[in-house]
Parts: sequence; structure tokens; C-alpha cells
Amino acid sequence: MSTSVSDYAIATLGSHTALQILKGAKDEGFKTIVVSTKKSRQVYESYKVADKIIEIDNYEDYFAIEEQLIEQNAVVIPHGSFVSYLGHQQVKDKVKAMHYGSKGILHWEADREMERTWLKKAGLNVPKIFRNPEEIDRPVIIKFHGANGGFGYFIAHSPEEFHEKMKEFPDEEDYVIQEYVVGVPMYVHYFQSPLTGELEIMSFDKRYESNADSIGRIAARDQLAANIHTSYTITGNIPVVVRESMLPMFFEIGKNVVDVSKTLDEVPKGLYGPFCLEGIIDPQLNFRVFEISARIVAGTNPYTNGSPYSWLRYREPMSTGRRIARDIKEAIQAGRLEDVLG
Amino acid sequence: MSTSVSDYAIATLGSHTALQILKGAKDEGFKTIVVSTKKSRQVYESYKVADKIIEIDNYEDYFAIEEQLIEQNAVVIPHGSFVSYLGHQQVKDKVKAMHYGSKGILHWEADREMERTWLKKAGLNVPKIFRNPEEIDRPVIIKFHGANGGFGYFIAHSPEEFHEKMKEFPDEEDYVIQEYVVGVPMYVHYFQSPLTGELEIMSFDKRYESNADSIGRIAARDQLAANIHTSYTITGNIPVVVRESMLPMFFEIGKNVVDVSKTLDEVPKGLYGPFCLEGIIDPQLNFRVFEISARIVAGTNPYTNGSPYSWLRYREPMSTGRRIARDIKEAIQAGRLEDVLG
Amino acid sequence: MSTSVSDYAIATLGSHTALQILKGAKDEGFKTIVVSTKKSRQVYESYKVADKIIEIDNYEDYFAIEEQLIEQNAVVIPHGSFVSYLGHQQVKDKVKAMHYGSKGILHWEADREMERTWLKKAGLNVPKIFRNPEEIDRPVIIKFHGANGGFGYFIAHSPEEFHEKMKEFPDEEDYVIQEYVVGVPMYVHYFQSPLTGELEIMSFDKRYESNADSIGRIAARDQLAANIHTSYTITGNIPVVVRESMLPMFFEIGKNVVDVSKTLDEVPKGLYGPFCLEGIIDPQLNFRVFEISARIVAGTNPYTNGSPYSWLRYREPMSTGRRIARDIKEAIQAGRLEDVLG
Repeated sequence: MSTSVSDYAIATLGSHTALQILKGAKDEGFKTIVVSTKKSRQVYESYKVADKIIEIDNYEDYFAIEEQLIEQNAVVIPHGSFVSYLGHQQVKDKVKAMHYGSKGILHWEADREMERTWLKKAGLNVPKIFRNPEEIDRPVIIKFHGANGGFGYFIAHSPEEFHEKMKEFPDEEDYVIQEYVVGVPMYVHYFQSPLTGELEIMSFDKRYESNADSIGRIAARDQLAANIHTSYTITGNIPVVVRESMLPMFFEIGKNVVDVSKTLDEVPKGLYGPFCLEGIIDPQLNFRVFEISARIVAGTNPYTNGSPYSWLRYREPMSTGRRIARDIKEAIQAGRLEDVLG
Repeated sequence: MSTSVSDYAIATLGSHTALQILKGAKDEGFKTIVVSTKKSRQVYESYKVADKIIEIDNYEDYFAIEEQLIEQNAVVIPHGSFVSYLGHQQVKDKVKAMHYGSKGILHWEADREMERTWLKKAGLNVPKIFRNPEEIDRPVIIKFHGANGGFGYFIAHSPEEFHEKMKEFPDEEDYVIQEYVVGVPMYVHYFQSPLTGELEIMSFDKRYESNADSIGRIAARDQLAANIHTSYTITGNIPVVVRESMLPMFFEIGKNVVDVSKTLDEVPKGLYGPFCLEGIIDPQLNFRVFEISARIVAGTNPYTNGSPYSWLRYREPMSTGRRIARDIKEAIQAGRLEDVLG
Repeated sequence: MSTSVSDYAIATLGSHTALQILKGAKDEGFKTIVVSTKKSRQVYESYKVADKIIEIDNYEDYFAIEEQLIEQNAVVIPHGSFVSYLGHQQVKDKVKAMHYGSKGILHWEADREMERTWLKKAGLNVPKIFRNPEEIDRPVIIKFHGANGGFGYFIAHSPEEFHEKMKEFPDEEDYVIQEYVVGVPMYVHYFQSPLTGELEIMSFDKRYESNADSIGRIAARDQLAANIHTSYTITGNIPVVVRESMLPMFFEIGKNVVDVSKTLDEVPKGLYGPFCLEGIIDPQLNFRVFEISARIVAGTNPYTNGSPYSWLRYREPMSTGRRIARDIKEAIQAGRLEDVLG
């Protein structure tokens, strides 16, 4: 296997975090390939991040062009849209190109029960789930995962209120009743290198959600009159830094999540590369974690030229996308490429 | 005409986006001039962006010193305050100094009806306007443009509610009844170069409005007790990045707006240079556009040292202010300065 | 006294703004020392900002290791946690290491009455304080400073409402009744150099407070049902830029605060180094100031690699932490180190 970066390419689908992944790969000396729809290609042309654009009609058609990636000796970087379009099962069973990161871990993040098992094993403070509505004894949020995913979420405080409000959603069966934690959302962007064995915190963000992040702009009296429901569609991300005294805790829980991942079924190498813990900081500064993303998140997009944290450790702009490419480059040069592929 | 940048200056009024315009001009090798009040000059001194400060008592006194700008071979950059203090009609009829950008387009952005015609012709998804209050059939926002500009906006859901609430504003005649779109505000910063013919997306922001962006910090019960009205005074800007999968749409609508601008009356060169589309992203990810600014916007101010987007395309810090200076520099060097003046 | 930077170290406690202080000190050529708990040391190791880590069990144990700092010829930088853990009185009476900044000013910022006297003397527009609840004639916020600090704040509009709501807090005696100003929070980060005599504005931020900055994400009807109280625990900071036309005012009030500080008791050199004015911009663009921090604030943490403002004045990344180190460096090189120590 070649130990020269110029013999390899880095490839991904044209969406989600492709801009920073490709830019970062170029900065590390890789040839870059974006697999893009006709509609999206101008984005990757305009920002000059792709050496080669492979056009497909739908992102689901990835497998029709995968052979080209293999011919180019490309390492594929999975991001949220990649996993979402292909499905974690297909990523595991069908992707034949070199793939950065553990494939098995994608199942653990996709299945709500498995994800919860993992997070609890790592000792994280996860919100309580109520299996039985009759047990509701505090404010809860009812989240829908099916046709209403992201929409129609509501808050209830008692079994009675739950049943009353559920009447608006007679056909919904895929929902979860979660303890409602009042506090500010915070997304922590980690990077675990299998080469250095070190855990890094790259940055933080808060999402910009429609309409959750704008209903507060409507005076309460007008909200009530308009009968506004909250929805949580992600439209973008806003940079944020965290209270410095919370960093030791964030390092600790990140390490616990990585450690536990090595004990999970069908994840021989455990979790590595970029990942994100998503939670709420409550007024007592507890971090209540409700989700993990086991790959790069779009919350790193404000930091294509480095974050307030990555600029401390690196003397050059280090996005999470570039950190991935750096990991692959160091693996290639050390003859250890296998160590970062999953 | 000289093709040497050192024979030219770049000038603007000391407000709005002058800091980045002047800094960007210096970075491109221009001499810089700020026309400033006594009170503001220390700002431009402190940040060391102006080679020359011309002091005036009021920004409306611009014409009294314009001859000095002409003597210095200065290209004037119009920003929001420049257009606001001088008025689009005076900019068009009286400005004799070299002026970057189409003057005629300023009329199209200033007149609400003309602006709407333009945006609709470009196929943009604009909120419905109700000419007749009796036709109100959904939530609407009543915006005042006269003495109450930015203040006292209210929401209504029916003709009855409209008439009831208007009783608080007996003297207001200059208002518009607009469909109320629930979703997050997003401001898209474009740059269209007449030299390269390319449309670029430089960055995004959300405004920081008093009190709209703080009433959500007040618990609903307290808001109701305090009888708080919403106001929309701009106090600053917050950086944001957009969901990457929305970028193709943003490129497309930007292009449509530029294309249509070339067909508008009295705008021979069409729209070029920086401009901004201002809208709401709703929970279904539709971008509902309610305004266009046909010149640099203050929302680009977080990015004096480059944005998460401009760092992808450029290998140096590229603010929108610097992008303007780059355009002028390239025009000068190509002997095509006329092409960027309006 | 040596005029060579390499003969000195810069030291601080491992919390608050230590990352940028230490990074900035390294960038200016200093040896860096962090005094850290066992739990926090990995943060300063991971970001590679500390040449030396002195471990202590509690931050209150600072005095047990101070001798080591003196031996290293270290200048100690006080930040919010440093002042909070040690107390302003102990900082003044017991700190023997070289200390950057006026010690006496810390008393003026710590005592609410003295702080208010200072701000009013400087002509700042401070919110009205009601000594007697019977005088409440407008919306007021009741802030607790004792056991409930940051929690349970409430809003009242009349003496009757005040007495009614205070029934929830029968044991609270340490509170203040402050005029409630509706508008957006804004934190202004200043730097006053005793060497250059110049006042600089480094950056701005808004805090990210739990739960104040998330209750607006809950629809009004749900808030009312959940009986949510507002709390103001700081969890992080969000970058923001301010309307450019407000900068002359911000420079003016900053200068007034510095000028008045020189007349205060027991502050021979007045206020210098970094400080912050904390207030609300109301919809009429008045800046209502409710607090001053007379040392570096955590709101500067988004700008470890420079801010949209510092990049205008400096041609290199200039955090507030680095600005401090630059001040000390210039003092050392000019043989004027005494001028920056307090």
C-alpha cells in the first residue's frame, strides 16, 4: 500500500458537511471527489473544493458510481446525509470503497434503544423515558419519529394532559415520552484519533431550528392567539463557546463514551474519528445528554477556518473536516491506513 | 485612465459597514478615506482603517465635501447609511464622484411595490400582502413604516382583530398587512461580479433585534403581566451558517434576482456587487423572502476577517468589503473601471 | 529588572479565560504556568497552552503554591474565577506575586453600591433601583444575591404584586429591586493600556444563559402549563457584532469609566487592562448599563483567534488574553513593568 498522500483521494456526498471535508482534504494534500446531484454541483464548483465532481441523479444512486471511487483509491467520509441516504445497514453491508470510521457504530446511533444503552453504560445523565403514559409525574415532551418527525412535539404534565393532547395525533404510534429538561441546548464536537489515542474537543454549537428558535420573538399574547406549535427543523448552526469550568466534565464524558464503545457488539475498533454529544445544560450546570452522533455533525460548519478551540491546539486552521483528513494522512504515512478504516 | 491601484482611493461614510469596507480597501492596496462626523472619527482612528478622515457635521453634508473625493480620485462605496442619509434619488441625481454599483437599482429596493414586483418576477416565494383588511384569513403582521417604523408591529388573525388592535394606532396610515410567516430569520449575503460574471455567496447572518430577540427570555406569564409589545430595532448581528443542502436553492434564487434585474427600468447594468436577500426559513425549509438590499448589508460585519464560506473559496481573509475592493482593483487593472461604476 | 520577556512567566488559575490568557502569553513569547486542579489539568494539556502545570486540590489553595510562582518570576493574571475563589480582599491583602491590574478596583466592582456610584459618576445610564417596594411604579425585576443567586428572579409591576410573589421566597433578604429594562443584552469588551494611554474595543458578546436563553423555545401555552421560572446561569457565550453607528457611544462611555476610576478611593492607577460593561440596548438604542467587570470576562472566549474588531487593528490574531500579554511584554521591554502591576 502506498504511503504517499498523492496516491489517494478523499470523497463524500455533496451535502451536510462536504464543503469542510473537501476543503480540509485539499489542505492536507489529497485529491478530492464530490458525488453530487446536478442541482448541487455548482455549490462545490463555486467554493472550489472539489477536484472532481461525479454527478448522480439521486444520492441513493451512490452504489452505481462506487466503482469509480474505488478506481481513484478514494477514502469515503460518511456524514449525516451519507448515512441517512444510504442507511446504516447498507453502509455496513454494501459499501466496498475505503470507509473512514467504524461502520458498526452507525447501528448503535441509529437505534434509539441501543443508543440509550450505550450512553447509560457510559454513565451519562440521560433524560428519563416514560414507557407508560400513566407514569408521567413531571413535565415531559412527546417526540414523534414517524411522519410527524420534528413536528407537532408537545409538552404534558400528567397522564390526563397527555391523553387529551394526543387526540390531535390519532394516527401517531411512533413516539417517545421523554422527561422535559429545561435548559440550553449544547452540541459538543469531539475527535478521537485511533493513531494518537487522544480525545480532542474541536468546538461547540447550538442549532438554529425552525420554528423553535423564533417563536420566542413572538410576544406571548400573540403566540396564544395564533395557537403556534413548536417544530424543530434544523436550518443552520450558530457558534458558541462553553463556560471553561465545564470543559473537564466534557472531556470526561467523551472519554467514557469512547471507552464503552469498545465493548459494544460488532464494533471491533470502537468509536473513533469525529462524534458529537447532544444535550441540554440545565441551570444547575448538569449536562443532560439526549443523543449521540457517531460521525461528523453539521454543527462543525461554522468552523471551516478553525474554531476558538482548535486555534488553541493547532497553529493552522483546523476544521473537523480537515482533522479527519489529517488522521488519514498520518495513517497513510505511517503505513497504518487500515487502522482508520471501518 | 490609470491602471494602477495606487492612483485611486476608496471612500465611504463613517457608519454601517465602513470599517470592513476601508480595511478591505487597504488590504487591496488602496488609499482609504472616511467621511465622518466629529463624534465618529475616533472609531476609524482606533481601528486604523482610514488614511484620511474628512470631517463633516452631518452625514447629509456629504455634497459639501464631494469635490475633495473627486480630487483624490476616490471611488465611493454606498452602504445602507449612505443611501439612507442621502436618499436614493439624490444618490442618482447628484453624486458626481465615482460610485460603485448601479444607482438605478437603489430606487427598486427603496420602493416597496417596485421591490415586490422585482422579487416576484424572479420567482421568489414572497409573503402574501393583504390590500384589504377584510380579506385577512390567516395570521398577519401589521408593519408600520412611518413614525412608528420598527415599533408597535402587531399580529392579527381576522378582520375583527385587526380593527380592534388598530385602535391603538389611530394616526397610523403608512402600514402594510403581511402574511405572518412563522420560522427563523435568515439573511443571505451575495456578491455578483460584473467582471467574472460569477455569483458568490459570501456569508449568512441573523440580526440581533431589540426587543424581538430578548422577549423570549421573559417567561410567558411575566410577558403577559407586563403587556410587552414587540419591536424590531437592529442592534447588531450574529453569525450563522446554513444547512448545506439549502445552498443550491440559495444560489438559484440569487441568480434569478440578478437575471431579472437586467430587465428593470433605468438599471442598464442590472444588479451587481454585494446584495442581500432577507427572509424566513419555515419548518418545511421554504425560504420566504420579504426584502432585498441592493448594496452591502451590516450583516456582513461579523466577517471582517472572512466567513466560514469565504475561507473556502479564498486563501486569504475575504470580507464583503474587501471583495468590493478586489472587484474595483481587478477592473482598474483590466482597464475596465467603467464596468463597475454606476 | 530584566527587560527580556524570556525571564518572565505568565500564570493564572485553570478556569474562566485561562486558555486564551495562556495561549496569548505563549504567542508573545512568555513561559506559561497554569495552577490547576487534578480534574482540570487535562484541558490545559490537551490544548497545549501551559508550559508548566502546578496542581492543587482546590483553587482556594492558591496561597500554598504562590511561592513557586514568585520563584518563576511569574506575573499573575486575575480573571473572574481567580477573584471569585480568592475574594477581592485577599487578592488585595495577601497576593504577593506580581499581579497585572489594579487590585483596589476589584472592591469597586464587587460592592453593588460602590459599583453603582462609580457608574453613575461616569454618567452612565443605569437602571433605577427601588429601595422601598411601595415605590414600584413600573416593571421591576427582583434579583436575588444570596442562596438563590441566579435563580427565582421574578418580575413585578406594583407593590401588591411584589408582596404577593415574595411569599414564594420567605427566607430571602438579599435582593435588589431593579427597573426592568426590555431590550437585548450586550457585553462590551474594552482594553485600556497604561502604556499607550489608548482605549480599545476588542469585541462584543451575548451570554448563553440557562434557562433564560431557551425558555423562548417553549411555546407560550406550554410555558404557562409548566409554570416555568427564569434563571440566569451562564453556560457559555455567543459572538455578536454591534451596529456600527453605536461604536462612538461605546468608546465615549468606556473612556468616562476609565477617567472616573482615577478618582476612586484606593485605586491609585485607576482602571486599566481589560474590562467589560454589561447592559441592555433598548429599542430606542439607549445602552442601559447594569454592571462592570474590572478584569477579563469570559465573553471574550469566542475570540481566541481574534475578533471581527481586533482583526481590523491588528495584523495578527489578538485575543484579549494576548492583548494583556502584549501589554506586559511592552512594559518589560520599556523597563516599565511597574506601570502595569497593581
